[in-house]
Amino acid sequence: MSSKAVFYHAGCPVCVEAEQQLASALDPARFNVEIVHLGTHKERIDEAAKAGVKSVPALVIDGLPFHINYGAALDDVR
Amino acid sequence: MSSKAVFYHAGCPVCVEAEQQLASALDPARFNVEIVHLGTHKERIDEAAKAGVKSVPALVIDGLPFHINYGAALDDVR
Repeated sequence: MSSKAVFYHAGCPVCVEAEQQLASALDPARFNVEIVHLGTHKERIDEAAKAGVKSVPALVIDGLPFHINYGAALDDVR
Repeated sequence: MSSKAVFYHAGCPVCVEAEQQLASALDPARFNVEIVHLGTHKERIDEAAKAGVKSVPALVIDGLPFHINYGAALDDVR
């Protein structure tokens, strides 16, 4: 059974690096990783905020938010 | 061939959560993850700083530092 992981980003250089190195490093046998670009999918910003995401890039694993370095504040993506 | 990943922490609650959820989520087929407690292994703080680590918890993958949420500044661990 795989867990849900969602990687939220906004296309920034810090985001791209985190996606290539970290989001892609998760164990595919255990995690189903969804990549969400909040700049082009603004309708999902509220969902990210509800999960506790304050900035991007961020990875939400089993509902827990992990902010990875700092690309942009969530409010700046709105 | 597996890549080297080092998870630096200082035993703080934020660190423990990141270790349990994120460091342990990496693909074991691709990553050899070393867990380093800088509070008890202060001799490795300089190594973390050289990799670009500014705060803990942090995960260094293939030499690139990813700061995960914020537990403590590296200087506060010294």
